[in-house]
Amino acid sequence: MSCGAFALDPRLGADTRLVASLPLCDVQLMDDARYAWLVLVPRRGGLVEIADLSDDEQGLLWREVNLAARALRAVAPCDKLNLGALGNIVRQLHVHVIARCEGDAAWPGPAWGHGKAEPFAEVALQQRLAALRNALEASS
Amino acid sequence: MSCGAFALDPRLGADTRLVASLPLCDVQLMDDARYAWLVLVPRRGGLVEIADLSDDEQGLLWREVNLAARALRAVAPCDKLNLGALGNIVRQLHVHVIARCEGDAAWPGPAWGHGKAEPFAEVALQQRLAALRNALEASS
Repeated sequence: MSCGAFALDPRLGADTRLVASLPLCDVQLMDDARYAWLVLVPRRGGLVEIADLSDDEQGLLWREVNLAARALRAVAPCDKLNLGALGNIVRQLHVHVIARCEGDAAWPGPAWGHGKAEPFAEVALQQRLAALRNALEASS
Repeated sequence: MSCGAFALDPRLGADTRLVASLPLCDVQLMDDARYAWLVLVPRRGGLVEIADLSDDEQGLLWREVNLAARALRAVAPCDKLNLGALGNIVRQLHVHVIARCEGDAAWPGPAWGHGKAEPFAEVALQQRLAALRNALEASS
């Protein structure tokens, strides 16, 4: 299923900022200074499950997830990457890539739904976005 | 990195039961009657992150995840699949595929780390394992 025009779900839009557009996905930064957290959103309408993408698109999705993970690690060294596609609240297909550090706010539990996001200060947000754009470019 | 012999992490071994061995992964059923929950574990030693697998192995991993997800849905209809690779506690690479239903024990939050597992009665466990094996065979 991949019908209708793409528009970012407004809840994802409110929680994240655009880092870059890859061939399939928009890479969004979660505006939560407690973590380094990316969300990849395939720019196709009507997607809910990963299986809604064609095999070729799934291959591209996972390549872009790897690319985003490498860039995230370059900018924010971590102890463990967490990858997740949940969608219980926002059904629009999106994949989380989170750099987790021992002792972070939710460690060792999942970051989803844990406490309240702490938005970045605007200067720190712009620095993080710039660093991620450079790292994405370097690793593509 | 893919060195050393494979042995299932004892914590995963204690929490799950083997459903079937696919070419790359062992498919394990989480022994928690609150959910229909599979864990795929690539049978390679020394894996922590998905990027520790070669590109070809990653392709195979995601194909096996799709296969497991189809089998899970056939056995346990759900409102949303949850996919996750966390590894904050057990570092051995493993991918969760969870059939989530509105109103289930952790809904709409993540199932990881929520409350205490409720083991299946042995008869129900054997029935679930048999149904999953049939569904896996039917969808491969």
